[in-house]
Formats: sequence, C-alpha cells, structure tokens
Amino acid sequence: VRADELGEFTLIARLTSGLEARPDVLLGVGDDAAALDLAPGAAHVLVATCDAQVAGSHFLLGFATPEEIGAKALAVNLSDIAAMGAEPLWALVSLTLPPSLDVAVLDGVYAGFRRLARRYGVAVVGGNIAASDGPLVIDVTLLGRAARGALLRRSGGRVGDAVLVTGAIGAAAAGVLLALQTPLPDAVDATLLERARAAQVAPEPRVAEGRALAASGVVTAMLDISDGLAQDLAHLCAASGVGAELEAAALPIDAAATAVAAAYGRSALALALGGGEDYELLFTVAPEHVEQALGAVQDVEGTARVIGRLTAEVGLRLREPDGNVREVEPSGWDHLRHVDS
Amino acid sequence: VRADELGEFTLIARLTSGLEARPDVLLGVGDDAAALDLAPGAAHVLVATCDAQVAGSHFLLGFATPEEIGAKALAVNLSDIAAMGAEPLWALVSLTLPPSLDVAVLDGVYAGFRRLARRYGVAVVGGNIAASDGPLVIDVTLLGRAARGALLRRSGGRVGDAVLVTGAIGAAAAGVLLALQTPLPDAVDATLLERARAAQVAPEPRVAEGRALAASGVVTAMLDISDGLAQDLAHLCAASGVGAELEAAALPIDAAATAVAAAYGRSALALALGGGEDYELLFTVAPEHVEQALGAVQDVEGTARVIGRLTAEVGLRLREPDGNVREVEPSGWDHLRHVDS
Repeated sequence: VRADELGEFTLIARLTSGLEARPDVLLGVGDDAAALDLAPGAAHVLVATCDAQVAGSHFLLGFATPEEIGAKALAVNLSDIAAMGAEPLWALVSLTLPPSLDVAVLDGVYAGFRRLARRYGVAVVGGNIAASDGPLVIDVTLLGRAARGALLRRSGGRVGDAVLVTGAIGAAAAGVLLALQTPLPDAVDATLLERARAAQVAPEPRVAEGRALAASGVVTAMLDISDGLAQDLAHLCAASGVGAELEAAALPIDAAATAVAAAYGRSALALALGGGEDYELLFTVAPEHVEQALGAVQDVEGTARVIGRLTAEVGLRLREPDGNVREVEPSGWDHLRHVDS
Repeated sequence: VRADELGEFTLIARLTSGLEARPDVLLGVGDDAAALDLAPGAAHVLVATCDAQVAGSHFLLGFATPEEIGAKALAVNLSDIAAMGAEPLWALVSLTLPPSLDVAVLDGVYAGFRRLARRYGVAVVGGNIAASDGPLVIDVTLLGRAARGALLRRSGGRVGDAVLVTGAIGAAAAGVLLALQTPLPDAVDATLLERARAAQVAPEPRVAEGRALAASGVVTAMLDISDGLAQDLAHLCAASGVGAELEAAALPIDAAATAVAAAYGRSALALALGGGEDYELLFTVAPEHVEQALGAVQDVEGTARVIGRLTAEVGLRLREPDGNVREVEPSGWDHLRHVDS
C-alpha cells in the first residue's frame, strides 16, 4: 500500500496507535503541541511541537523569497504554540539540503527565520544539517511554556458553545491559486494580489491572541487553522465529541480571497472552508463568555468573531444566507495527497 | 557558493553566528544538546537535541532493515542526550517521505523506533508527516532532563586530564565498507561481518554510561563520537582550549574493524580515528579521578579505557607503539561532502 493511498491522517493514526505513555506526558500526539511536565509543582509546563516545510510542496522558490520561506518555517510552529495558549521560547532547526544548493538561499532562509525569532523572543538553541539528493526541507521544533492548568486543548468544546475565529480566512488559499496559475488575473487590484501572496508566504501567527485567550480563562477548546477551517473544526469536534453549525454570512472571508476567487471563477466560500494555511485561531467559549473572549483579543489589538456554534448532532453543517442548512465535508489539505481529501 | 564547498561545520558557524540569547538558555548551539532552564530553581534542566537520518545518505534500504533504520534514528539522538549525562524522556518524529513509499517500510521504521523508545523509557509525544519528491527523511527531536549543575559539556577539559572512551571503535566504519563494497570479503569470519554491519545499522547509545559518569561528578568534558574519534576529540579540545595526545596502542579498536580493514587492504587505525558513527562516549577526567570514572562505567556494566591525555600544546598527536609521535588531522565525516574532510 502506498502512503498516499492511506492519506496523512490515517497514516498518523496507524503509526501512533497504542503509544506508550509516561505519567509526565500531560498531552501527547493529537493536539497542536505536546504538553510535558518537566518539573512537577513548577508554575509552567513544557510545550513542544514540530513542523516541516518542503521545497516544491510547502513553498516554491521564486514565489516566496528565501527570507519569507525561513520566516514561515518558524511561523507555522509559532501558530501551533499559540493554539495551546503558550509562550514560545526555544527553536531547533534541522535542514536537509542538496549539497549543490546555493548558500545564499540558506543565508536568506536563516535571516528570515532569525528575524521572526527575534520579534517573538525565540532563541535558536540547536539544529542539524544533513545532505540529500532531494529538495530543501526546513524542519523546526519549537518549545515553549504554558501556565500549569491553562493549556488550551482541542477536546474541551461543549454543546452550545460559540465557535469563534481570529482575523480573516481564505487569503492564503487564494495565494496558492496565484502561485499555481499564471498569468495573474488582470481584474484584481494589485494590493489584493499582494495581500493574497503575503497571506500564503508570510502568515502572521496569532501568538498574542493565543496567550490572551488562555489568560482569559473562558476558552473551552482551541486549535489553529492549518489544514482548512472545515477540517480543523472537524478535528476540534471529534476531540470534543460534538458537531458544529457555521453561519455562512458570519465567516470573515478575506477581501483578497473574494477578489481572486472571482477572477478565477472559483468559490471564495470554498477557499475559506477548505483552503488551509490561514494560521488563524479557531476556538470555542460558552455563550455567556463571548464578550470576555472578544475583549481579550481586542486588548492585544487582534480581531475575532463568532462564526457558529457547537451542536449535539455530530458532523458539520453550514447555514446559508437564505436559511437553508447543508452538510459540509470536512475537506482540507492532505500533505500526502496534495489534494483536498 | 555551493553548500558542499563550505562544508558542514563552516556552514553551521555561518548560519548560527551572533545568535541572540535568552537568559534561560544555559547552553545553546555548539554542544551535543542544548540545556534550557524551564523552571528556575527546579531540580532538573531541560536538554534538547535533534538529528536526522536520510535515505541514501545515512542509511541504505536493503543493507539495514526498516526496523533498524527507525531504531537508529532514535539511537543517534539518545547518544547526544547521553553525552550530556542526561536522561532521555520525550521524542518528536518528523517524517518527510515520497507519497509512493510503501507503508510497510514506515510500519517497520516506527516499530523499530518504538521498540528502542520503550527500552529507554522514551515517550513519543508528537511528530509530523510531510510529502516530498526526495528520499525518506526521519528527523527526530529528543528531549530529556539533567540534574541542575551536573551537565557534561565539551568545554571543561583541562591540561593533564586523561582522555577516555567507552566501548570499542571502528566497527561502524567497517560496516560502511561492507555496505559500499561488494562482494563481501571471504576472509572475514561471518560473526565479525555481522558485528560490523550491526555496529553501523544498530548502534547502542551509551545512555547508562553517560548518566553514571554525570553522577560520578568527576568528568570534566564529554561528547559522543558521531563524526569520528579524531574530529570529535578536536571538537572537545577546541571547546576546552587544549590539545591532546593519543596512545595508538591504547585505542580499543573493534575486532570487526581490524578484520574488515585487513580484508580490504585498509588501515584499522584510520577507521578508528576517522570513520565516525561509533556512538561511544569520549570524556576527560583528572588523572586522580580515572579509577572513579572507570568504576562508574563498570557499575552499569559498561567498559571504558584511557586512550590519551589533554595537552597545553594545541592540535592532535598520536604516539605510536615505537614511541614516535605524529600529528593527526582532525578528519572525519562531513555531512555535506560525503567524504573525509
């Protein structure tokens, strides 16, 4: 059986089934990051995550600059730490590269990585360099800390909770269309074209929002949108044992997604639901705590809005502006299939 | 400039120069693992390392089984944790793979990884799967803990200290000869052939020895032999600001290295000095503490012996059985050049 016939999530489940635990593993495989108890009784627990960026798959040299590629390799990990409500601290960078690669590319990758690390107070503390005859791979492990008892998991959502999302969605998926389909559409304003490109190659992790939401104490479940809103919401629902209903009119679809989708004859809603790589935070709170959660995000100059609610009925549904409700497939990015799954 | 023109160590120095520090980074880039202060005042500090195994470069499917490849991906990281005198705890596994890869290979890799993890009490707590059109890459981050104040660094060696090594060296390099040169030599006993192959594909990390040496309190500097005895001793000397003189007659050259080298008309001494991947521990102690260090290793059923001493004169020298002393180049494995550098 080929790996892509199983797909990413089936393969992960197969490889990690029945993993042995240690009592100091507070949270293992299956959330945005692991939570580990290094020093029982201490104020903080350790949080750890890893994510890789692969040339030709996650990024295209030419569409993104080396600096952008390096910064994104850290940003996607910062987003996972943010999704736990944790503070990022230390990074390890493992490069696999063809020996013929121009060192100027690596200089740029590292410059971008280090620039973003500085902005978020992250120290590079280790790494590795290995040669291969394949593409450049930038594999990052990011470590951080969370206040004990304030970890935000995927599994705490309850029926009736409001579903919220930070920022706007769909622009990163619009950026993928721009990368893969040339020429660029004439009909789209240059500012929006650059906005879509930037959303894809230079995502802003919601670290401040994640920490503010953790500190608010009202969030019941959280993750980041890496695979696509529908698929990531399905992950949250599966972990919480609930379903969800989204309001189509409430989705904060980015203006760049709307414009690029229109130019290519695509659905902006489909980009927003299934496109992936938004790196926004998706979270749930009890209805009476919505104002408090929104206030926490505003206090760090972020934005968030209610987009739906958790339901006892499992599965995802979308309420359209005309009042009709339809089922939504939890489709999104599968890293092994390179297609919506 | 191509990456292989710079070489691994020059490139690492270039990419990591002037890294910004945090006060909680006790030990950053440049040792076998980083040491991080998650909980000031706690009994333990966090230790973190990462190392990747690349198909076609670090392992050959066919020479090693998938189980051996998976176990080695963890073993090389266990060796780095051992070299700090630390206890391994938690692993993250990042796989980059061609989508066409047979899942049975991954099943085997994970089975081998998990078998060794169980033996050393390590929990798999996270990971990532990414697709590429290149070779299989198994990138592992291993986290552990060390008693505060008992970290064994590379930099503590002092002039006059004895240089010691655990186990035996050279067999892993002999295993590389077997992997690359066929047919297998008739003249070598089958047991020794398998011993050389096993040393290459299934190294035993010296975790118990590392922890026992840390607990002894007498070790001044330590690292593991991954690049080759001469090169790794040069790293220890550079970090400690000293030189070293080795006794050729004292080197514990593995019988498999001697036999395979003879069959191929190669020098067993050269395999032992420059071959790499022994994953033994190389460490230094004051002369009056040699017995105590040897006792600590014996208490965990390991072996170690004195192979030389640290000198004020920089550089590496080898005293041959006839009493002549010659300079030794700190040659060994360069992961970008694939040749002795």
